[in-house]
Amino acid sequence: MPYYIPCKDEIPRFPRSVEWTKNSLRLLDQNSLFYPYNLRFIELTTPNSVIDAIKTMSVRGAPAIGLAGGYGLVLAAMKCQIQSSTEFYNTMKLIVTNLQNARPTAVNLVNVTNRIISILDPTMEVSHQKNCILKEMIKIHAEEETTYRLLSERGSDIIPEQATILTHCNTGALATGTSFGTALGIIQISYLNDKIKHVYVTETRPRLQGLRITAWELQQLQIPFTVLVDNAVGYLLATKKISCILIGADRILTNESPSYFVLNKIGTLSIAILANYYKIPLIVASPYSSFDYKNTLSQIIIETRASNEITHIQNHQISPNNINTLNPAFDITPPDLITAIVTEKKIIYPNSE
Amino acid sequence: MPYYIPCKDEIPRFPRSVEWTKNSLRLLDQNSLFYPYNLRFIELTTPNSVIDAIKTMSVRGAPAIGLAGGYGLVLAAMKCQIQSSTEFYNTMKLIVTNLQNARPTAVNLVNVTNRIISILDPTMEVSHQKNCILKEMIKIHAEEETTYRLLSERGSDIIPEQATILTHCNTGALATGTSFGTALGIIQISYLNDKIKHVYVTETRPRLQGLRITAWELQQLQIPFTVLVDNAVGYLLATKKISCILIGADRILTNESPSYFVLNKIGTLSIAILANYYKIPLIVASPYSSFDYKNTLSQIIIETRASNEITHIQNHQISPNNINTLNPAFDITPPDLITAIVTEKKIIYPNSE
Repeated sequence: MPYYIPCKDEIPRFPRSVEWTKNSLRLLDQNSLFYPYNLRFIELTTPNSVIDAIKTMSVRGAPAIGLAGGYGLVLAAMKCQIQSSTEFYNTMKLIVTNLQNARPTAVNLVNVTNRIISILDPTMEVSHQKNCILKEMIKIHAEEETTYRLLSERGSDIIPEQATILTHCNTGALATGTSFGTALGIIQISYLNDKIKHVYVTETRPRLQGLRITAWELQQLQIPFTVLVDNAVGYLLATKKISCILIGADRILTNESPSYFVLNKIGTLSIAILANYYKIPLIVASPYSSFDYKNTLSQIIIETRASNEITHIQNHQISPNNINTLNPAFDITPPDLITAIVTEKKIIYPNSE
Repeated sequence: MPYYIPCKDEIPRFPRSVEWTKNSLRLLDQNSLFYPYNLRFIELTTPNSVIDAIKTMSVRGAPAIGLAGGYGLVLAAMKCQIQSSTEFYNTMKLIVTNLQNARPTAVNLVNVTNRIISILDPTMEVSHQKNCILKEMIKIHAEEETTYRLLSERGSDIIPEQATILTHCNTGALATGTSFGTALGIIQISYLNDKIKHVYVTETRPRLQGLRITAWELQQLQIPFTVLVDNAVGYLLATKKISCILIGADRILTNESPSYFVLNKIGTLSIAILANYYKIPLIVASPYSSFDYKNTLSQIIIETRASNEITHIQNHQISPNNINTLNPAFDITPPDLITAIVTEKKIIYPNSE
């Protein structure tokens, strides 16, 4: 029985983007959220098809990628014919490495798959290892369902009445694979609590997650919103009364000094500097599963994606031939530009800790 | 005999975007600079067709719009059958108003057409008035040819050796209707002087003037460049050594306190704030014909353009149906964020005057 995303009039609007069926992973293909919006689901039965879906961004959003990767490991375990316990265990570890390499920046993929491996033991019988993998993954998904509801409720507590909010990229239920988003989850709950006046959404080039996906989610949720191009954020903050800016995170570094550098969708750093200039609170919504307790800035890889994300829209060339592009998928925002980080457990204030 | 744009190997690369033929205005249709780049020229013979070309942005760039508008007045005068001197004069004034309303923000259109009207006199014979209009307009265009060369040379003087420059939108020869651009004119001359290492270009949503037009011009001029999405400017300034940022202006207010507020393509304000944060010089290249000595901030209209500039690319829908957009064509950068303004006569330092 799939979960559906709740909204104000209690008519569920759209199903979860990541769903386990008895023997396959069903994804809402986020690349199908492009005009004419033929909402499409894809059924995956192999770890390689999961890796492909992550690379091509049929599943995207750090938390949803983490869940998809975890289910990729479940599929690998189910299909695996190996009888030797140790060999099976080592194979699973290898598959985890492959899954983790599908996209290098978001940390949830690493955290989810490492957590599953950590409960295994090479001495456990293969059938027991298989059971443990599936059970742990189902448990993780259920926990995440709670995590994003708690995070969204906690975040909503600090949203003022009659709030006008700016958000970037897509941080909705589609990005988490649960019923609530991170930054958009806070907007979902705040709207249910009658606190949202209006939401501004950056289109989020190059892949237009704001214009394509966040706009679509807000329409389904009947939350009033306006889309602007990314470079109009300065104009927006200079001319409209924005209560706060809400964004997500792909990875938050706690083992760097100062703590809480935030890796997030390209454009976040620019918005953070503009928010700082106009003294508008910048709130990051992130579960602890996006925290990285191990790596420091120098160890971080910022993924550079293909040039055609800039030069083409849906196979449609929009530039001269043969141009060079710079296409980083993420940027890094320093903690001094961040007002608060809302997690499922508490709110962190990076500049007063 | 049309003018061609000079480049390093002295092979002229492309003709001027605004050209007077004996009895028509020939424009390089800047909307044809979209894949597959069927470079198209349009011949205009009526002031209304000029107004259309300005509104639809077949001609764009504040200086080029000013020239096109001036030639629109020439065409109106040539076609006009009125015999009475006063009536002719008043008709020309009316046409100037219509031309000036085609696009409200760039001031060159106002300055050029007002200058032509200012030399007329309702007592002058119609044929003489007609002659004066044509002669004055030819004179203006010839002056502008000199203006942008001087401005580009002057600007090049303050560009460091081995410069890596960021520019926004299109400020090239196509935007001025002469052989040199404004900000891109400085890059043209600096490149001829071997001072340019690399140019970064923002794609400049929504109309992609950077990705479409500046990229095309830089290719013709064989200047090495890289295009990035607008929201990656923060990332660029944080990670690469950028010598300075060069932009144009659609209107510079001198009758405001403090002086030198700069109206320019949407995104300029965001870039200015980022430049300020990273302490990178922001240089505005602007002829005096873009200066507004009369209006103050409260009198300025920021043009809002159609929603489909955001929701569609070349008639190709990229968003859900029926979404609200905020689509200002310009923003306003305060003088304290501007390092220097390069004009054809001198360099102004807004913060030390």
